[in-house]
Amino acid sequence: MHFAAPLPLQSGGTVRDYTLAYETYGTLDARRSNAVLVCHALNASHHVAGVYADQPGSEGWWDTMIGPGKPVDTDRFFVIGINNLGSCFGSTGPMDTNPATGRAWGADFPVVTVEDWVDAQARLLDALGIETLAAVLGGSLGGMQALSWSLRHPARVRHAVVVASAPNLNAENIAFNEVARRAIVTDPDFHGGHFYAHGTVPKRGLRIARMIGHITYLSDDVMNEKFGRELRRAVGTGADGAAGSGAGPSAPTPYRYTTQDVEFQIESYLRYQGDKFSEYFDANTYLLITRALDYFDPAREHGGSLTRALARTAAKFLLVSFTTDWRFSPLRSREIVRALLDNQRTVSYAEIDAPHGHDAFLLDDPRYLDVMRAYFAGIATGAAVTATAPATPALEALP
Amino acid sequence: MHFAAPLPLQSGGTVRDYTLAYETYGTLDARRSNAVLVCHALNASHHVAGVYADQPGSEGWWDTMIGPGKPVDTDRFFVIGINNLGSCFGSTGPMDTNPATGRAWGADFPVVTVEDWVDAQARLLDALGIETLAAVLGGSLGGMQALSWSLRHPARVRHAVVVASAPNLNAENIAFNEVARRAIVTDPDFHGGHFYAHGTVPKRGLRIARMIGHITYLSDDVMNEKFGRELRRAVGTGADGAAGSGAGPSAPTPYRYTTQDVEFQIESYLRYQGDKFSEYFDANTYLLITRALDYFDPAREHGGSLTRALARTAAKFLLVSFTTDWRFSPLRSREIVRALLDNQRTVSYAEIDAPHGHDAFLLDDPRYLDVMRAYFAGIATGAAVTATAPATPALEALP
Repeated sequence: MHFAAPLPLQSGGTVRDYTLAYETYGTLDARRSNAVLVCHALNASHHVAGVYADQPGSEGWWDTMIGPGKPVDTDRFFVIGINNLGSCFGSTGPMDTNPATGRAWGADFPVVTVEDWVDAQARLLDALGIETLAAVLGGSLGGMQALSWSLRHPARVRHAVVVASAPNLNAENIAFNEVARRAIVTDPDFHGGHFYAHGTVPKRGLRIARMIGHITYLSDDVMNEKFGRELRRAVGTGADGAAGSGAGPSAPTPYRYTTQDVEFQIESYLRYQGDKFSEYFDANTYLLITRALDYFDPAREHGGSLTRALARTAAKFLLVSFTTDWRFSPLRSREIVRALLDNQRTVSYAEIDAPHGHDAFLLDDPRYLDVMRAYFAGIATGAAVTATAPATPALEALP
Repeated sequence: MHFAAPLPLQSGGTVRDYTLAYETYGTLDARRSNAVLVCHALNASHHVAGVYADQPGSEGWWDTMIGPGKPVDTDRFFVIGINNLGSCFGSTGPMDTNPATGRAWGADFPVVTVEDWVDAQARLLDALGIETLAAVLGGSLGGMQALSWSLRHPARVRHAVVVASAPNLNAENIAFNEVARRAIVTDPDFHGGHFYAHGTVPKRGLRIARMIGHITYLSDDVMNEKFGRELRRAVGTGADGAAGSGAGPSAPTPYRYTTQDVEFQIESYLRYQGDKFSEYFDANTYLLITRALDYFDPAREHGGSLTRALARTAAKFLLVSFTTDWRFSPLRSREIVRALLDNQRTVSYAEIDAPHGHDAFLLDDPRYLDVMRAYFAGIATGAAVTATAPATPALEALP
């Protein structure tokens, strides 16, 4: 959808006009009351569910969560997936033409924030004739957008579902983003962000950025379980697991003694992920989106008080975190829960004992999906809902 | 000291002849029984203590620990600091001439392991006329060398002191090393490791490597305390701390909205550390030393059993870990303690409740220094010693 009216940005700048890519699933009911907006995280898009007719393997990035009969049931809800401004999957972004110069925006694309995205999304809802969302839903950076919706447009959100998210980035989160950005910006193929004109792509930097990202998405435990110290050549031999074969000492596969070639499986995995990412993701978008993460901090205008910041919310909330997520740990979700409770908001909170780290929010852990299914069923029927999960602590016990 | 005899390596290769840089502190006693060997970690050297007469600010990297009247008291002990083979601070390494080609070794320097370093160190002790060490001591990768000493030369080590270390790297540790190596190797100025001949230095890659390293050396807590979300320009204003001023909402310092310039203090800190490191550290050495870390795994030749691997030790042990060290967590030290106890070895273990993460082993936490002081006093007097620290769990309670 094209928007001709300029969008004012948090930075003070403006996007003169822009296009947003979106997909919808299910049917908007007569009262226009069953819309669910799904916000994406760093490298995802508007294609949240389903497959394209002519493209096998084209499942949406949250296809486990969203679809007919799934936890966010598209037989009941009208689900909207949207690609954010500045991204590289169809919405206006750095690869598009800057009307002021006639060339690609490149690094001159305006810095966009979570708040800017929410405002742009609100205009899409206006155009679709949707005044109030049954729910706004997102994981990680998507959860920040859901939280921001509840602040910027409190009357338009009945439920905000914030998964594996945080009220802001901490120093370590910013640090990882910064290393990734430096890898991209210092790649000689970046050309100050105007690499399109040079016919290059800063793939070295994108690879490093993605490798760093992947480490922070996975838990220590799941990395040890999936890869451990296994050598690349030793797949299936069982000779190089840290636990050994259990059948007494046997000669391990010899090391190759190389500093530049792949020796361990984990190296092979990371290189593959980096290579794949560098083929499709835009480097300027990576800078923009990590910066939007860095800047998000709703408490900032309230003297650092999240409680005061969240006083303007009116929605009901579901927060979900995962025990082994060290990027956005359960403590960060609990900060939000605590601030909402301080404001007497209705909050459900589930802390899922999952081994997969931050990535768990994209996976099909049955307890997680059950929590989401129960909550969205409650939204659909209007019933009061309380999330439950084996590891859910009593809300009263929160620090 | 120059060594003319070839050194056989774990890889099957050989270093034909080589020089090791070392320093000594204190006096070797008549029975040659008070020698303490100090092994260094990734980016340190033989200069472990004291200052050079003409160089203010040239304190050794472990000057809090080693010196007259310090925990490792050079009035009592003859301390030897040594720079490892392949490093870039005086011992033979990639910047030196490869006798086979007449050019710098560069990336062709043989891959060296912890075991190779220990063997090279043993030759230095031979040359100094020291048969038995009162103690071998190291933190992090240095601790791995201390552990390896107790395995390769059990009769020559009375005490092995292993601080903030691990019995091997886990998948996440290897992953971080690999990202750092890829940043270096893919820097166009690396030239396949032969950048000396091109008059270049892969500084971009070294910067990224160091930034990644620094993140893993610090705890989440200390990063939040030291940097938090403070803006670079907001130093001392108190306006941008996550906790706010506590005096009610006040307008925060505006963001600059930039993706490439420094916005947060943590970014400035990391860039500074990266820049500094890239000025003095050799890129090929970085590859070699991170690979030595990756390869260390004494249990590997024993079917993965650390208990069987440590059966050949004869030394007494002190293990020290730090609660907030997420690079080599206390659990990794406990693995070593457990395996030693399984072999009925004498082990002291102190788990120090310190906020500084992995870096704590280089800092002057008084409880940590007290543990070390007590242990080395016991070595000096021959008394039985048991380390104690407020957070030391009973050894029987180990998992």
